[in-house]
Amino acid sequence: MEVHTFFLHLMVILIAARCCAELAAWLQTPPVVGELCAGIVLGPSVLAWLQPEPVLRLLAEIGIILLLFEAGLDTDIRQLARAGVKSALVAGAGFALPFALGWGLCELVFGLPRLVSLFVGGTLTATSIGITIRVLTDLKRRHQREAQIVLGAAVIDDILGVVLLAVLYEFSIAGAVQWSNAGRVLVFVGIFFVLAPVMAKLLALLVRHLHAASRTKGLIPTVIVSLVLFFAWLAHEVGAPEMLGGFAAGLALSRRFFLPLGVAFHTDSDFAERVEQDMQPIVQLFTPIFFVMVGLSLDLTTVDWDSPFIWMFSALVFAVALAGKMAGAAFAGERPLTTLAIGLAMVPRGEVGLIFAQLGRSSGILSNEIHAALVIVIALTTLLPPFLMKAFYARFGHRLSRGG
Amino acid sequence: MEVHTFFLHLMVILIAARCCAELAAWLQTPPVVGELCAGIVLGPSVLAWLQPEPVLRLLAEIGIILLLFEAGLDTDIRQLARAGVKSALVAGAGFALPFALGWGLCELVFGLPRLVSLFVGGTLTATSIGITIRVLTDLKRRHQREAQIVLGAAVIDDILGVVLLAVLYEFSIAGAVQWSNAGRVLVFVGIFFVLAPVMAKLLALLVRHLHAASRTKGLIPTVIVSLVLFFAWLAHEVGAPEMLGGFAAGLALSRRFFLPLGVAFHTDSDFAERVEQDMQPIVQLFTPIFFVMVGLSLDLTTVDWDSPFIWMFSALVFAVALAGKMAGAAFAGERPLTTLAIGLAMVPRGEVGLIFAQLGRSSGILSNEIHAALVIVIALTTLLPPFLMKAFYARFGHRLSRGG
Repeated sequence: MEVHTFFLHLMVILIAARCCAELAAWLQTPPVVGELCAGIVLGPSVLAWLQPEPVLRLLAEIGIILLLFEAGLDTDIRQLARAGVKSALVAGAGFALPFALGWGLCELVFGLPRLVSLFVGGTLTATSIGITIRVLTDLKRRHQREAQIVLGAAVIDDILGVVLLAVLYEFSIAGAVQWSNAGRVLVFVGIFFVLAPVMAKLLALLVRHLHAASRTKGLIPTVIVSLVLFFAWLAHEVGAPEMLGGFAAGLALSRRFFLPLGVAFHTDSDFAERVEQDMQPIVQLFTPIFFVMVGLSLDLTTVDWDSPFIWMFSALVFAVALAGKMAGAAFAGERPLTTLAIGLAMVPRGEVGLIFAQLGRSSGILSNEIHAALVIVIALTTLLPPFLMKAFYARFGHRLSRGG
Repeated sequence: MEVHTFFLHLMVILIAARCCAELAAWLQTPPVVGELCAGIVLGPSVLAWLQPEPVLRLLAEIGIILLLFEAGLDTDIRQLARAGVKSALVAGAGFALPFALGWGLCELVFGLPRLVSLFVGGTLTATSIGITIRVLTDLKRRHQREAQIVLGAAVIDDILGVVLLAVLYEFSIAGAVQWSNAGRVLVFVGIFFVLAPVMAKLLALLVRHLHAASRTKGLIPTVIVSLVLFFAWLAHEVGAPEMLGGFAAGLALSRRFFLPLGVAFHTDSDFAERVEQDMQPIVQLFTPIFFVMVGLSLDLTTVDWDSPFIWMFSALVFAVALAGKMAGAAFAGERPLTTLAIGLAMVPRGEVGLIFAQLGRSSGILSNEIHAALVIVIALTTLLPPFLMKAFYARFGHRLSRGG
């Protein structure tokens, strides 16, 4: 690929993603939906201007590990501990129900192969915390009781989702469902999840000392990106998806991360702030590339829109996605209105759902049609809740406030 | 290329560059020399761990346009106007003499083809302002008379160097010296240099307004990088090297840029600061990749170190590089000691010299041997002056201060 062509393509991707994200935000919808649409428009579905070329794909991969790095950075383990049993119940049920329902639907109703069914189920598990937080903050509900339960549950959901992703990733490499492999992966991922943040934390302390002693500019961007790349590579080596490594590195560098070993490794908040400040522009530069790539790898022209299958499939998967999270919310044991509020807030799938769908697509397990249907379902689960939540709180908000 | 392999390679490049840069800084030498050495060690010359792969090459190209963007951002046009005639004379002579001497040496003494000779001459023209500023600041000489002349001259040198690069680039594409092409390129580059900063400035004003109106995070990194990519692509389209576009974009966004049209476009210094703050980590992430790539594309094992040619050639080119800048300094018409101080400060070639050499190599004009010799000469011109300047000021500094 010629240098100037690469520059042009990258520029088109960044500008299109930005314009569509702004438009989405202006329409009160999450920017990620705009970035996805930018990719659909630029890709084979509409204009066919761009192809998902290898270089762009690699940049998108950097985008996704950096996105998970940021998610890790934002994860508050203390909050998790505080949110307690109710969050764990909502998370567990809100993870297991959509997964089981999605899997069952595909395998029993549509007769799809088990691996495909598992991927569809997996896509429905994760809750996009970013979108939920944004809406709750806009509604000034961020510190209410139901919001606390939702935030705790979303964090647990994310971790469960990433672990499930590791297992499905192993299946996708083997090309078949092998439960023995799954067990091995779970053990590895478990060890990785315990050791990687500790290791990353120790490395981060080293980086902090190096930063203090450094005689040249620009230590943080290069060293922190290297750290993320290293853990992504390490995750791959232990048989987990690369993004797991990004998440672990972010968790360790999080301002709120604490080690069970005690307070010996206390985080220097100046340094943590500096890391966030320096990493933010880099994360913001790379992540839109990933979502545009998801849109680019979607070919809506090859989907047979006349067949009833795609419509039925999308509608039923969407129903399962909605019902699964709603039913999960009931496990909190709250009053019906609070349950409804929790359920609605848990519906958005956003980024993590797209990552699942993309992994299934790039490993050849999901057909273009199933992939397209899943992306549509994810887009719907992400687009609708902000509106539904606003309408819900406008109507019932005062009664919820009274209830606590 | 597999994703995890790419992650590993990128990590090795970033970490090696950082370690060597720190080591270089600790040894009181410019970090860029360390990054170059990291590439030489990782590449075919020593360990042969890494190849200059296409993806890494494209990332290095982003690094170089961002580096020139930063150089443009740091260019102070007002200072240039203030530095006046003396700077212009030093710059003109310090540009023309090494170019003519280098060209003559290669063509007349070594009998090399004209295109090769022109590239060698071109490599010797630019002054690395970064290294000079750093040393003068360390010596607390930044605001002395001779420092002002040097800084003005280095800025003019940079612009002349970039224009010459555009002409040589055209020759390298044509594969031959065609003066008619050179004329056309000069006209295009002239127009580009006048229009691009004005256009970029208008776009920057647009970005500033968008930034104020934006509803989503991360506008600056994506839009400013897009702007740089766009001007790099545009520069290519008018027949100039991509990095010229990066330089023009930086010039326009510079806090000190002013338009001849008047003060109507006054720069919002908050916005300019925000741009610098957000772009710095991105520039710092990408630029080391370029210098490591220069080291990677150097194969010192294929150089015939037993032939007297390489030694003779390096020694004479180095002599020319030194003498040309020293003789250029004489045009300032200062006392001998001040002339010597100016001459020494003008010697470092650093980044721009490496860009010339790399362009000559990648377009197949410079053989591996000549390229290696040039890189060695550039490294020497960059390594020695800091020591020489320190020794010089320790011995003669008090007499210079008296002189003004």
